[in-house]
Amino acid sequence: VAESFFRAAPPLRDRDRVAGDLAAFVARHAGRGGGGGRLAGVVCVTSGGTTVPLEQRCVRYIDNFSSGQRGAASTEYFLKAGYAVIFIYRRGSKQPYCRFLPEDSFVDLFELGEESDIQVPESHAAVVKTAIRNYRKAIDEGLLLKLPFTTIFEYLQLLQMVGTAMNCLGHQGMFYLAAAVSDFYVPWESMAKHKIESASGPLNMQLNQVPKMLFILRKQWAPSAFCVSFKLETDPDILLQKAEAALRKYGMNVVVANELANYKDVVVMVTSNGRTTVRRPSKEDDVEEQLIDLLVEMHSEHIMQLNQDHQTCTS
Amino acid sequence: VAESFFRAAPPLRDRDRVAGDLAAFVARHAGRGGGGGRLAGVVCVTSGGTTVPLEQRCVRYIDNFSSGQRGAASTEYFLKAGYAVIFIYRRGSKQPYCRFLPEDSFVDLFELGEESDIQVPESHAAVVKTAIRNYRKAIDEGLLLKLPFTTIFEYLQLLQMVGTAMNCLGHQGMFYLAAAVSDFYVPWESMAKHKIESASGPLNMQLNQVPKMLFILRKQWAPSAFCVSFKLETDPDILLQKAEAALRKYGMNVVVANELANYKDVVVMVTSNGRTTVRRPSKEDDVEEQLIDLLVEMHSEHIMQLNQDHQTCTS
Repeated sequence: VAESFFRAAPPLRDRDRVAGDLAAFVARHAGRGGGGGRLAGVVCVTSGGTTVPLEQRCVRYIDNFSSGQRGAASTEYFLKAGYAVIFIYRRGSKQPYCRFLPEDSFVDLFELGEESDIQVPESHAAVVKTAIRNYRKAIDEGLLLKLPFTTIFEYLQLLQMVGTAMNCLGHQGMFYLAAAVSDFYVPWESMAKHKIESASGPLNMQLNQVPKMLFILRKQWAPSAFCVSFKLETDPDILLQKAEAALRKYGMNVVVANELANYKDVVVMVTSNGRTTVRRPSKEDDVEEQLIDLLVEMHSEHIMQLNQDHQTCTS
Repeated sequence: VAESFFRAAPPLRDRDRVAGDLAAFVARHAGRGGGGGRLAGVVCVTSGGTTVPLEQRCVRYIDNFSSGQRGAASTEYFLKAGYAVIFIYRRGSKQPYCRFLPEDSFVDLFELGEESDIQVPESHAAVVKTAIRNYRKAIDEGLLLKLPFTTIFEYLQLLQMVGTAMNCLGHQGMFYLAAAVSDFYVPWESMAKHKIESASGPLNMQLNQVPKMLFILRKQWAPSAFCVSFKLETDPDILLQKAEAALRKYGMNVVVANELANYKDVVVMVTSNGRTTVRRPSKEDDVEEQLIDLLVEMHSEHIMQLNQDHQTCTS
């Protein structure tokens, strides 16, 4: 199923450049961590929603709701913990260090001074300057690689490339799969070529299921990586059982369960050892701060455990 | 059909505040233009694509492709021509005076100087400063009112409010309907309450046609306004005939025809007097500059013509 999905998908633009950037990034950060105490690795963070085009020359598409807030915030905390981050994100979604921006107009944030210098109102100055400083640092130190997608086709091809590129990192690699991925799609070859005409009454559509790539990531692309996936539901009654089913089915290390109604306030980390509820302490804090802290700790223990089990392999 | 659409739609948040802002804006600018020569009026610019939710607690939705580039650029040129602009735009789409921004990360544009002052690289400094200056001027002089939408329900409610509020401006009002509006939707009352389950095979959806609100705008909400609508197609063979059909069917003053493949380079203005092709002179120019120039001229002639025809009414 997966092979036919990839065969039929339109090829990624810039595939060779992306492959080169990825190989260089992974090579630069291979061997991060590996000493005692808290270890830092390489994490692939996915963020934002994927789209499903309904026409080949795309005017209409199905989209999954996601601002990218979770992925952008988490990337900041992974960088703070010393990780190198491959950020696979939806074009136009929230970016690390830019989450505080006014929603629609960056010029709302700026004024011109008397000498035509660019000024930020006192109320925002500290936040803006810290953001510019942290972002520059991550870029200048080569700790952040950003790879954009729009469609489900682009997203899954990027995930495959990053998965196979990170395989050589073994258990020091982490996947943090926060993107909202489409469950249904229209196969490329059966898609309307031109804009669907609206004149002739109601529209009937049949959508196929997207192959479950988590399974392939786990089995083929990067089987040793520490894997964290997300389960979002609107109905709290089915959330935790679905998260536990996903944990078993795909062999995840952690499934983070969250509800649409309060996903910024509370998440539940579901593992084979039980559940841990994480709440943000106040509206000024991010729930991701404590979540990433716990995950980094778990990843670190996981690496040390595996290093002890396989001492002959790793020493 | 339209009444049942509005009855079933979820009510607009902030409806009362928006109504107040609108009434004040229109009152402030009523009577703009009306002298001899080139007249300036009030224009409602719609911009960006509308979404159609597939679930009441919305995780998935159908979206229409539109960056908002056309509407944002046109707003700048209308302001330059002296118009007051009501900008109805999709949240997150391109904004007037911010079109030059890096696509995904505003911090890519800024650096910190030695004294932690915010700096823009020399290459971008002039553009950024002009943008901040022009935007501030439009806001400070009260010439720009911005009203955001996401769903087709919000968009059509806003259009109705602006249409009826602008009716008192008579033929000095203009509508420039550049938004990409959904043709199909799922009626709110028949929509799934929770996220659609993906476990049980392919998904079948039936979508209804959105009522043609251009017709109602023209007949009821603001019958005297100068009305410009857009027709976007991917198939050039049917574009102009569809534009002419729309001109007749909805009684538009102008239909601007454009193709997805080259909408930034060339448009065709279709009127009852014939067709005018507008091309941008170079990659450094906007096709909207000449387009707005021609439309402002036509609107101005239209007003003078009507003033002559109905001298007793307007003097």
